[in-house]
Amino acid sequence: MRESCGIFGIFGPGKDVARITYFGLYALQHRGQESSGIAVSAGKTINLYKRMGLVSQVFNERIISGLKGKIAIGHNRYGTTGSSSLTNAQPLVLHTHLGHFALAHNGNLANTQALKRKLFSRRESFTTTSDSEVIAKVIAEEKGDSWEQKISRAIKKLSGAYSLVIMTANKLFAVRDQFGIRPLVWGKINSSFVIASESAALTNLGINNFEEVKPGEIIRFDGAGLKVIDHFKSKKTAFCIFEYIYFARADSVLNGKTVYLARVNAGRILAQEHPVKADLVISVPDSGTSAAIGFAQQSSTPFIEGLIKSRYIGRTFIQPEGKLRQLGIRLKFNPIEEIINKKDIVVVDDSIVRGTTTAGIIKILKKGGARKIHLRIASPPFIGRCFLGVDIERYKELIANNRTLVQIRKKIGCDSLGYLSIKGLKKAIGKIDYDFCTGCFTKDYPVSYQE
Amino acid sequence: MRESCGIFGIFGPGKDVARITYFGLYALQHRGQESSGIAVSAGKTINLYKRMGLVSQVFNERIISGLKGKIAIGHNRYGTTGSSSLTNAQPLVLHTHLGHFALAHNGNLANTQALKRKLFSRRESFTTTSDSEVIAKVIAEEKGDSWEQKISRAIKKLSGAYSLVIMTANKLFAVRDQFGIRPLVWGKINSSFVIASESAALTNLGINNFEEVKPGEIIRFDGAGLKVIDHFKSKKTAFCIFEYIYFARADSVLNGKTVYLARVNAGRILAQEHPVKADLVISVPDSGTSAAIGFAQQSSTPFIEGLIKSRYIGRTFIQPEGKLRQLGIRLKFNPIEEIINKKDIVVVDDSIVRGTTTAGIIKILKKGGARKIHLRIASPPFIGRCFLGVDIERYKELIANNRTLVQIRKKIGCDSLGYLSIKGLKKAIGKIDYDFCTGCFTKDYPVSYQE
Amino acid sequence: MRESCGIFGIFGPGKDVARITYFGLYALQHRGQESSGIAVSAGKTINLYKRMGLVSQVFNERIISGLKGKIAIGHNRYGTTGSSSLTNAQPLVLHTHLGHFALAHNGNLANTQALKRKLFSRRESFTTTSDSEVIAKVIAEEKGDSWEQKISRAIKKLSGAYSLVIMTANKLFAVRDQFGIRPLVWGKINSSFVIASESAALTNLGINNFEEVKPGEIIRFDGAGLKVIDHFKSKKTAFCIFEYIYFARADSVLNGKTVYLARVNAGRILAQEHPVKADLVISVPDSGTSAAIGFAQQSSTPFIEGLIKSRYIGRTFIQPEGKLRQLGIRLKFNPIEEIINKKDIVVVDDSIVRGTTTAGIIKILKKGGARKIHLRIASPPFIGRCFLGVDIERYKELIANNRTLVQIRKKIGCDSLGYLSIKGLKKAIGKIDYDFCTGCFTKDYPVSYQE
Amino acid sequence: MRESCGIFGIFGPGKDVARITYFGLYALQHRGQESSGIAVSAGKTINLYKRMGLVSQVFNERIISGLKGKIAIGHNRYGTTGSSSLTNAQPLVLHTHLGHFALAHNGNLANTQALKRKLFSRRESFTTTSDSEVIAKVIAEEKGDSWEQKISRAIKKLSGAYSLVIMTANKLFAVRDQFGIRPLVWGKINSSFVIASESAALTNLGINNFEEVKPGEIIRFDGAGLKVIDHFKSKKTAFCIFEYIYFARADSVLNGKTVYLARVNAGRILAQEHPVKADLVISVPDSGTSAAIGFAQQSSTPFIEGLIKSRYIGRTFIQPEGKLRQLGIRLKFNPIEEIINKKDIVVVDDSIVRGTTTAGIIKILKKGGARKIHLRIASPPFIGRCFLGVDIERYKELIANNRTLVQIRKKIGCDSLGYLSIKGLKKAIGKIDYDFCTGCFTKDYPVSYQE
Repeated sequence: MRESCGIFGIFGPGKDVARITYFGLYALQHRGQESSGIAVSAGKTINLYKRMGLVSQVFNERIISGLKGKIAIGHNRYGTTGSSSLTNAQPLVLHTHLGHFALAHNGNLANTQALKRKLFSRRESFTTTSDSEVIAKVIAEEKGDSWEQKISRAIKKLSGAYSLVIMTANKLFAVRDQFGIRPLVWGKINSSFVIASESAALTNLGINNFEEVKPGEIIRFDGAGLKVIDHFKSKKTAFCIFEYIYFARADSVLNGKTVYLARVNAGRILAQEHPVKADLVISVPDSGTSAAIGFAQQSSTPFIEGLIKSRYIGRTFIQPEGKLRQLGIRLKFNPIEEIINKKDIVVVDDSIVRGTTTAGIIKILKKGGARKIHLRIASPPFIGRCFLGVDIERYKELIANNRTLVQIRKKIGCDSLGYLSIKGLKKAIGKIDYDFCTGCFTKDYPVSYQE
Repeated sequence: MRESCGIFGIFGPGKDVARITYFGLYALQHRGQESSGIAVSAGKTINLYKRMGLVSQVFNERIISGLKGKIAIGHNRYGTTGSSSLTNAQPLVLHTHLGHFALAHNGNLANTQALKRKLFSRRESFTTTSDSEVIAKVIAEEKGDSWEQKISRAIKKLSGAYSLVIMTANKLFAVRDQFGIRPLVWGKINSSFVIASESAALTNLGINNFEEVKPGEIIRFDGAGLKVIDHFKSKKTAFCIFEYIYFARADSVLNGKTVYLARVNAGRILAQEHPVKADLVISVPDSGTSAAIGFAQQSSTPFIEGLIKSRYIGRTFIQPEGKLRQLGIRLKFNPIEEIINKKDIVVVDDSIVRGTTTAGIIKILKKGGARKIHLRIASPPFIGRCFLGVDIERYKELIANNRTLVQIRKKIGCDSLGYLSIKGLKKAIGKIDYDFCTGCFTKDYPVSYQE
Repeated sequence: MRESCGIFGIFGPGKDVARITYFGLYALQHRGQESSGIAVSAGKTINLYKRMGLVSQVFNERIISGLKGKIAIGHNRYGTTGSSSLTNAQPLVLHTHLGHFALAHNGNLANTQALKRKLFSRRESFTTTSDSEVIAKVIAEEKGDSWEQKISRAIKKLSGAYSLVIMTANKLFAVRDQFGIRPLVWGKINSSFVIASESAALTNLGINNFEEVKPGEIIRFDGAGLKVIDHFKSKKTAFCIFEYIYFARADSVLNGKTVYLARVNAGRILAQEHPVKADLVISVPDSGTSAAIGFAQQSSTPFIEGLIKSRYIGRTFIQPEGKLRQLGIRLKFNPIEEIINKKDIVVVDDSIVRGTTTAGIIKILKKGGARKIHLRIASPPFIGRCFLGVDIERYKELIANNRTLVQIRKKIGCDSLGYLSIKGLKKAIGKIDYDFCTGCFTKDYPVSYQE
Repeated sequence: MRESCGIFGIFGPGKDVARITYFGLYALQHRGQESSGIAVSAGKTINLYKRMGLVSQVFNERIISGLKGKIAIGHNRYGTTGSSSLTNAQPLVLHTHLGHFALAHNGNLANTQALKRKLFSRRESFTTTSDSEVIAKVIAEEKGDSWEQKISRAIKKLSGAYSLVIMTANKLFAVRDQFGIRPLVWGKINSSFVIASESAALTNLGINNFEEVKPGEIIRFDGAGLKVIDHFKSKKTAFCIFEYIYFARADSVLNGKTVYLARVNAGRILAQEHPVKADLVISVPDSGTSAAIGFAQQSSTPFIEGLIKSRYIGRTFIQPEGKLRQLGIRLKFNPIEEIINKKDIVVVDDSIVRGTTTAGIIKILKKGGARKIHLRIASPPFIGRCFLGVDIERYKELIANNRTLVQIRKKIGCDSLGYLSIKGLKKAIGKIDYDFCTGCFTKDYPVSYQE
């Protein structure tokens, strides 16, 4: 599954804004590992550096030292394939009649094609294939003498998921779609303002006071402080429930709820919904560990680690092929036989996407002597394509797509299988100010996708 | 001095067009060493790969093999500084209402700002700071249902120097400004058409029959063969005379004249214009060697190599500093003392830009025992900024700018100094079908620069 | 703390021995991240490739495919500093009167200087500064017509810790010092024999049947199968107890005891030895997690994750400096405030070396609102230099060196502090066939160090 | 043909010896492009850095700045294939009973196997397959309380070609075999002493006074100045004549004779020995240019450049294959058709090794319209293996091996062919104090090769 991107921005005259952005992006690395970029505005000039790779690979001391200015924005992009994908790296920088303008985007539009057709009718053109450039162009071509006007008008035309940080010569903006689909928070430290996809990027920088950018808000940060310049309200809100399950860092607080605790609770409720008598509870590390702890507590079954995950798998690892192919999953997840041997085991994970790895793990555990394996998933069956931030190309490969629970269980090879209900998941998170987007489980989306 | 870029294009269904473009760009490496890029069209899809570095560093077998299609264009860009210059690398690819469109440009516009203002008034924006993107946008936003119409209309608005290769889904275009400032040739091999900045890129590929793209011509190459779709004629033509002196490969033929022979002739005429009695003629290698051979023949003075040039200086070389600074030029040009000691020497070079290196060489030769040094330059004094293809930032550093011949001679430290006259230079090249742009020597340009 | 190295060997005619060694080294990556190397014997020829970096960085498909042969050995080395450290990378290859000979070593000799002096008296010389080359030279210069004789004689002279894999033209040897200080196991798969530092490297390859190389054993693997060619027995045995605490993978089985379970047990006994009433038990991830789970079970206090560890810190990460320095530990360990706030917490880790990171974590937790912090360490105070496999240079920096428990507690800033006793640690591991080396806790070593 | 290595050394307390060695190695880059290394002694400690690649690729500012000391030696090695060749990079560093000892070697021993057998009989072993390590080991194992004694005794045992720079804790030595086969010079600048393979490395550093290390000399440079500590005289001397033809830089002075002038003279005498009537003389650049100039002067035929050589071919260039294979030579050497068309041409080169490139060039010239091509080679036919410094593996591929002149001419495809005689070559160089080794032309060597 592809991850949502990570975005960051800082308005900090006198601060080393590029360096702070570097650390911020580093804390958001989990949201995108394909490419990383930072754009810095020194007023009249703008500097941009973006390349393929992890934050720590893309930047070095010389590059960070060279990015001087008073405002910076940064972006981590999720992985795709193809040699030309540098083209789609962000931030995007545009040179316009109002000066330079840089944008970093997390989310996916639902009406990209319609917007493109409109811009095409004006004979506008694009340098990338991303919807992020469409957003930038819609803003840039909007009438108005100020960026405030342009942004306000433009977002009325955008349908879908977008959390944005926007930088102009002297201002920083935080923008979030009216449904509040992707997270976005901001904080203040001394006289600087910082925006990030997740609160963990702020707490990592020592900023413990932060607030959400509310759905539909456009907030401006500049020398005069912060100002909410528009608030595009909507009756409906739809925060992506998958952020709690998978995308966000465990130490982030989304809508007032700590992600880690939501995951532990999900495990607890899962144990209530799908109780099972077993000798022990293990997790698929690290994704299932928090839910497994919750499951164990609720079911009074001991939690222990039964699979050791390798920390060294990287892009340059030579994959085992041919006769050695079966080593693949084993090199990543190795079981502790003495723990699992002749035991009835509950295996907890956060979700199942294609099911290939899960099936491989079950096989390894069985081979290691496990007697019964009860697979418990701390989220509902993943069935729907998500056009609001997750790679939509391959949803036909989803194991839960057009399969019954029994079929899934057989394909995976476990002895019993239980998914958390949507109701249970919502209960695990607790009451927040917004509704959820649960499209990936229900095919019920806040907006419809326009081809 | 910054070099003009190198451009290449091939329409070759069934051929390995990316690979041929690689070899073509390799043969044009002298026109630009900063970045290199290739775009390939497979009809519906377009693939682009561009990075900082030499052709042989940017591409490898895996990348070239992955660029599949029937048409390709490529670009080598000259060196500038700054971390963000990847942004300005070419080819440029646009996605438009008529499908994708890629462009590679050699030259410089004179009315960039005016065109930008016009596009700004339509609230168009740019992703780069280059005039090449302005050209692409002017074409893309032109009315018309076909690329042929758009390109024809657009070039009437462009003032300045531009040789272009343009690739659309199924067509390749060669375009040259009406003055014919920068070179552009095309050739045919089997059923493929190839376009290049210089003929040497074609002869290197075994294509010995080539023709110039005439000033103002727009030629289309596609499955139906080639067609001149427009010819934007101008009374005035103005081929950059500096291409003969410095930019072009010695083995290229420009306007029917072999560059190497023009340079040898320049040396001959230089000997007539500024005769001097000496023991031997040496050159500043490699730039002055052809003219030195001509000078030697004409003056019946023996030509010999007196300076050995290092072939290994690269970007990663650690420059000598502090006490070792004086090693700098010596590590690049080392004299053969036995040859120059107690001799009166004619030193020939093609041009002097800032004069620093030349002065260093004179100093080394004097220290090596040379008695008299007669510096002869196979082109007129370089005094004018060139806004049509050469870096215009630093023309105040030109040694001939606001200095008399005597002042230049003293600054450089030679015993006598002679520059070739413009008349002599034109005579050396011989009669071609066009006039020359000699702006860098005369400040007389075919078009005026519009701020 | 520096890690022990990882060694691997395979005798496998007809197998892709270099590739299997690659996967084996990959599974042993935790034992050394500085450099990695593989040597392959094809009988008459030997090929060696070693470079600085992780296994997945050092090797690629082209290199692995090029290493052809029937026997291979490999080595991962722990990290040191200095540009010349490639010199000390292993395997070591010697060309001798009996043909080529390659060696990979885990451990440290105690009589290196004495052996060197003896070789120096014969005017032998060394190309590295490592004790591994001393071992190789002692073997190579030993009298005897066969490697079997040489190795047998040589090991009587070696004092200290050494687990070795040795490869000659046609044979593979496993050698372990008479105290059995460092682990070494071997397994069989089809007609191939595989040796590794730890059993996890075998189980990762699908080899579930493995045996220890016994202390003092020399085992030969060749076309005739395996043969114990010598067994240099000792009354005293001394398996490094720190392997159970820190060095080994949790999924390895050492002397019949699963490392993970020893660590969980250590946590349980620690809870008995240093009971404390608290709201919850957290660990310093990942090192303290297994013991924390044991502590939680024993004390009936809930285990939960309170610190989120970043997985992306790498060598190329720019460290925060100056005003940003305090971000350092936070970027690596971020607390979940909602969990720790106003709670009495037990924090469990496996050991404390210098204490700097531990103190930083305590500070972060306090700042995050933790009320009381009870630090529990699942091993005794680390006080002694270890000259048998751990970096001995910096033992004066050990926090427990010359400090009372109260002083340590104050320096670290926790509210209470408890270390596991040696007795408790041994009980946690359980009964094995050997004694332990506990020198790092007791300064009582199986051999004495000879300057 | 493989090149001889380049070696460099400096005794310079208070100087930045590593940096000076860097520039010295840079000036000797032509003698070896495979690997480069520098070792620096600070008295008690020695630091070594060596890697695969060109000088400017291997070292950077950080590495050079880190190599601190008062003495340095450096080495450039010629190219071979194979992934493990880093093993054979130099300098070699040994740790011995007299302290550390580093050596850089240019040349090849003729009695390597005999020396190895002797060392094997003492059960010594080697870490490389190079004869350079044999030299180092012979010195190190020699009896004696001082390096002076060891070196003096050792060189009596070495047969073959060796120019050495040797560095100990506080001393630098220059050593040359008794035949003086490979060049070696030393110079003084202020209170520092510098040794180099060729004088150009000294003149590049601004040291114009230099002297040869005489055949058989051992010179010591230390705080007390320089001292010839031994002079192992021999009746026979045998300076490699190929240094004048190919190995050395044109601006070096070997035995009092400037290499460039020897090459020009060789061209002159070649014109006398093989006169031919032609329209012009061209060279195979750059190797044949100096001789072509001499040929032209002597024959009163105009010299002109007819082939343009690409300067950008590097290791990472993708070679044309399949249908594009014929582009190979053309991309490296492109003819200027207008110059060669319908002309009778003398083509001069310094030597022919395998003949493949030469044949390709002739073909290109013919295709370009040349009428008659008279190939003139400024050295005798290369027939013999050279075991004294040139790769001896592939001498069977030499075109002149077992072929008559007519057969060579036909294979190459030229209309006439003339090689310079040995007598002519010697005359071109002029009288020096030593005899020549002409083994590659005569199979007559100063020493015999011992298997």
